[in-house]
Amino acid sequence: MTKHVSVLVAGSWGTALASVLAANDLDVTIWTRNAGQAEEINTLHTNSRYLQDIALSPRIRATTSIREAVENKDAVVFVVPSAGMREVASQVREFLSPDTLVIHATKGFESLTLKRMTTVLAEELPQCDPGRIVVLSGPSHAEEVIRECPTTVVVASPTIEAAEAAQDLFINSYFRVYTNPDVTGVEVGGALKNIIALGAGLSDGLRFGDNAKAALLTRGLAEIARLGAEMGANPMTFAGLAGIGDLVVTCTSTHSRNWKAGYLLGQGEPLDQVLDKMGMVVEGVKTTKSAYALAQEYGVTMPITSELHHVLFEGKTPRAAVEDLMGRGRTHEIEEVANQTDKWIL
Amino acid sequence: MTKHVSVLVAGSWGTALASVLAANDLDVTIWTRNAGQAEEINTLHTNSRYLQDIALSPRIRATTSIREAVENKDAVVFVVPSAGMREVASQVREFLSPDTLVIHATKGFESLTLKRMTTVLAEELPQCDPGRIVVLSGPSHAEEVIRECPTTVVVASPTIEAAEAAQDLFINSYFRVYTNPDVTGVEVGGALKNIIALGAGLSDGLRFGDNAKAALLTRGLAEIARLGAEMGANPMTFAGLAGIGDLVVTCTSTHSRNWKAGYLLGQGEPLDQVLDKMGMVVEGVKTTKSAYALAQEYGVTMPITSELHHVLFEGKTPRAAVEDLMGRGRTHEIEEVANQTDKWIL
Repeated sequence: MTKHVSVLVAGSWGTALASVLAANDLDVTIWTRNAGQAEEINTLHTNSRYLQDIALSPRIRATTSIREAVENKDAVVFVVPSAGMREVASQVREFLSPDTLVIHATKGFESLTLKRMTTVLAEELPQCDPGRIVVLSGPSHAEEVIRECPTTVVVASPTIEAAEAAQDLFINSYFRVYTNPDVTGVEVGGALKNIIALGAGLSDGLRFGDNAKAALLTRGLAEIARLGAEMGANPMTFAGLAGIGDLVVTCTSTHSRNWKAGYLLGQGEPLDQVLDKMGMVVEGVKTTKSAYALAQEYGVTMPITSELHHVLFEGKTPRAAVEDLMGRGRTHEIEEVANQTDKWIL
Repeated sequence: MTKHVSVLVAGSWGTALASVLAANDLDVTIWTRNAGQAEEINTLHTNSRYLQDIALSPRIRATTSIREAVENKDAVVFVVPSAGMREVASQVREFLSPDTLVIHATKGFESLTLKRMTTVLAEELPQCDPGRIVVLSGPSHAEEVIRECPTTVVVASPTIEAAEAAQDLFINSYFRVYTNPDVTGVEVGGALKNIIALGAGLSDGLRFGDNAKAALLTRGLAEIARLGAEMGANPMTFAGLAGIGDLVVTCTSTHSRNWKAGYLLGQGEPLDQVLDKMGMVVEGVKTTKSAYALAQEYGVTMPITSELHHVLFEGKTPRAAVEDLMGRGRTHEIEEVANQTDKWIL
C-alpha cells in the first residue's frame, strides 16, 4: 500500500527531501504558507524562489492547509528553520495522529532555550512517543539531491524501529541512508558545524591557506565532539556523516552562507555590514552565541568558538584571534582532552 | 647552545621542514645527492626544481656528503620517498650516533613488505632505541609552510620525551606541533589518505558532486580507521590532524597528484594513460594495492579500497564501482563496524 508522507515546509532542503520520497513512489504532500508557491509547485512543478527552474516530480502535491498536510499521514517530515520549529509544531498538534512517524531535518538549536529540535518537537507534540522521533542529517546540498547525485545521510532515533522506518521511506539507489541511535550527536553536529564554517571562511578571508583551514576543521570538530560528549552524545558520531561529512561539505563550498560571512569578516568588513550584505540569516553567528553559552554551562574548553565569539561580539580582530589560537601552550593531541572527558580523547 | 639538525633529502617537504628549523634559529643542514641542487641552495638560496623561485633562509646549508649531514647532529629528519627509505637509512647507519634524535616525515608503506617507515628505520639503524623514533605528519602543503602560513602537525613516538624533543625543535608562531603517542595511527593515516584522495578525484571526474565526495571522505576515513585499529592504532588518531586533517587537505586541493589521477580516471581515461600523463609516481595507486593486501591480511572490510582496486587493476568502470558502493545493503552507521572491532565504532 502506498505510504502517505508530508514535508513541512517548501524550502530548498524540504523540497529536495520531498523529491526523494516522490522518487520512491510515495504519496508526497508539501506544506507552505505561501499560496502562490503552492500553486507554482502544483501546476508548473517548480519552486523558483528556492530552486530556480529545476523540474520537480509531479508526484509532489503542495497545500497551504496544515490539516490536509498532517492528517492521516504515515510520516511527517519537519524541515522548518530552527526559529520557527516550535510554532509550526504547535499548529500541527491538533491534527497529528500518535501513530504518525515524526522526522525532522533542521539544523540548529532553539535560540533562547538552547534546546535541540527533537526536544522542541517532543514538548509541542505530547501525543508522540519521544523515543520514536527521528532526526535526519548529513552532507547534502539540496540541488545535488534533486539532480539525483549520490548522497548519504544518517537517521537517528532512540528506537531503532523508528530509525529504520525513516530509512525505508528515504533509501534508494542515489540516496543512501544509515541509521544511528545517537540523536544528540547528530543534532549537535549539524548545528555546530556552522560555527566552524564561519571560522573556515575567516581563515580564507585572511588568506591563511589550506593548512590553516584543515587545522581549523580538525580542531573544530574536536571541540564540537567535546561539547557533544558532555551533552550526552556518542563522540564517534562526530566522526561520521553528521559530523565530519557535513563539516567538509559546508567548509569547502563557497556557496555556504556561513563560509561567505566569515570570508568577508576575514577581509576586514565589520559584522553589521557583513550581515547587511548577506541579506539572510547567517545561522553560524547565532550558533556561536549558543555554543559559547553551552560551553560555559557544561564547563568545556572550546578555543575556536571562544575566539570567534571575541571576533563577532567583542571587537577582536580576526588576525589577532588566529594568532592567539596558534600561540597557545604546547599540547598533546590526545592527552589535551583526556582530562576533560574519557569519552572523546582528541 | 644552538642545536644542529639535518634534513634528508631536499624535496619540497624536506625543504619546507628545513625552513621551519632555520626560522627557529637552529643550525640546519640539508642533504641531497644532486651537486647542482646543493650549489643552488648554498649560493642562490632557492630550490627551483621543487619550489620555483621561493626564497629560502640562508641558514639552510646543503651538502652532498651523508657523513657531514649525519655526524654530530642533535637530530636527523628523514624526508625520503618511501621507496628509498631503507637504502638511505642503511647509508646513514655508520655515521649516526645513538644519541641523535631520529624523526621522519614520509607518507607510505614499504611496497613489498607493507612495513611502516618507523619499522624500516628501526631495522636499518640498530644503534637507535626504536622507542625514541619519531614520525611527523599532518595537513601541510610545503609551499604554505615556507610562506609561514599557519600550519599544524602532529609528532608521534612511543616515548613522550622523544616526541617533545621533536616538538621543541619545530614549534613556533606559525607551525603548531601537537604530540601523540600513537605512531601506528599517524603512519597509517598518512599513507592511506592517498587512496581516498584518488577516490575523491574519481568522484569529481564523474561529476558526482560535493555530497558524494563528502560521503567518500567520511566512509573512507572509517575504513582506514578500522584497518588501523586492527594494526594496533588508536582509532581516535584518525579523527585528528594525521587523519581527517590530512585527508581534507589532500581531497580538496586540485594540486594533489592523487586527486588528479582519480579525476582523469573518472573522466574515462585508462590507468596507463593517466600514469603516463602524470609523469610522476602516484602514491595512491601503489597504496591501494598495499591496503587491499593489508585488508585481507587483517580480515577488515574496506568497501571503498576494494572498489578502487577493482577499477585500477581489474577493469571495472568507475561508474559501476560507485553504484555498487551506494547499492550495498541497508546498514547502521555505528553498528556496522561494532561487529568487527569494539575500538572503532563507526
